[in-house]
Amino acid sequence: MSEIDYWFTTGSTYNYLVVKRLDAIEKETGISFRWRPFSMWKILREMKHVPFADKPAKAAYMWRDLQRRAQMFGLNPRIPAPYPAQQVPFGIQVAFLGMREGWGKAFVKTSYDRWFDEGVEPYIDPCLSETLAGLGQDPARVIAAANGEENNRLLDAETDLARSLGLFGAPTFVVRGELFWGHDRLDDAIQWHRHGTLTPR
Amino acid sequence: MSEIDYWFTTGSTYNYLVVKRLDAIEKETGISFRWRPFSMWKILREMKHVPFADKPAKAAYMWRDLQRRAQMFGLNPRIPAPYPAQQVPFGIQVAFLGMREGWGKAFVKTSYDRWFDEGVEPYIDPCLSETLAGLGQDPARVIAAANGEENNRLLDAETDLARSLGLFGAPTFVVRGELFWGHDRLDDAIQWHRHGTLTPR
Repeated sequence: MSEIDYWFTTGSTYNYLVVKRLDAIEKETGISFRWRPFSMWKILREMKHVPFADKPAKAAYMWRDLQRRAQMFGLNPRIPAPYPAQQVPFGIQVAFLGMREGWGKAFVKTSYDRWFDEGVEPYIDPCLSETLAGLGQDPARVIAAANGEENNRLLDAETDLARSLGLFGAPTFVVRGELFWGHDRLDDAIQWHRHGTLTPR
Repeated sequence: MSEIDYWFTTGSTYNYLVVKRLDAIEKETGISFRWRPFSMWKILREMKHVPFADKPAKAAYMWRDLQRRAQMFGLNPRIPAPYPAQQVPFGIQVAFLGMREGWGKAFVKTSYDRWFDEGVEPYIDPCLSETLAGLGQDPARVIAAANGEENNRLLDAETDLARSLGLFGAPTFVVRGELFWGHDRLDDAIQWHRHGTLTPR
């Protein structure tokens, strides 16, 4: 099947611009995207890198850039959203469990809607349990399973794979081993998938 | 006159993709770009940020991304070029003097050609003096003037202005106070210049 690996974290602000658009892009291009949440925060910690921390000018720009580009894509988020979101590592654990069980995309999409469109913290209660219940999942069961040994072992393996592929940021699209980092390289990833090169534009 | 401020450093790798294309873009769009070299390294030092240092995965990606996008733009640099280039702060001083005296754009363009197309260190001799002589400038005079009190005072003032505008990286395009950071936001800057918004694409 025609596929691009879409590696992401539930904590990325720019990832809002992917989460909100990817279904439409799949329909438009006929390309399937394989949603792969991973523990980006662990790789960032290894790099001793904390995005935007102690960089007020860069953080201010990020919000403005995100706002302008959201409007370009026909989106209208509340800017700024709460940042950094609380409990992002746990949000990733839940998203990863959801991908294993089939409700992960809906969880990520709903969480981004609430985070960016409503300004609500998505990975703590009450929002977390509300989102899960809305997806027909028992919050107590999900929270226990997301914290369970099996889920974390598999998530660690996925994160090890991401590291071995060379990922250093997210979202990153991977096409036959080629990395495309950032929401603003999605078009490049699609071009590469189609042609194995970037066509002039 | 219809203008976009193009703030840059002579040390940025991605800036190669702007320097090589900006003349053609000016012709195509009818927009003039005001070339403004500044001491980005001072602002990075204040941010305690050294791009790509101790981040091998990110550095490897930067070269691959730059290479792919260069090909997309019809360019064919030698990748990787020497990095970081030696004596970038002095390269900026020379470029800034050149802008004041009218040969700055040619100096920057020639330096990037030699750095990326030939793999030569551009801001140390022999290349530096060769480039200056090729532009009809006396290298000894230029080197003295670039190091002079007046040039550095004016460059510091320019860098202070960049900081006050909110610049935290380069190249950055500034359109009526709106910042667009990165070679990959040049299209956004042009759209903003034309329409005061980003048009859907």
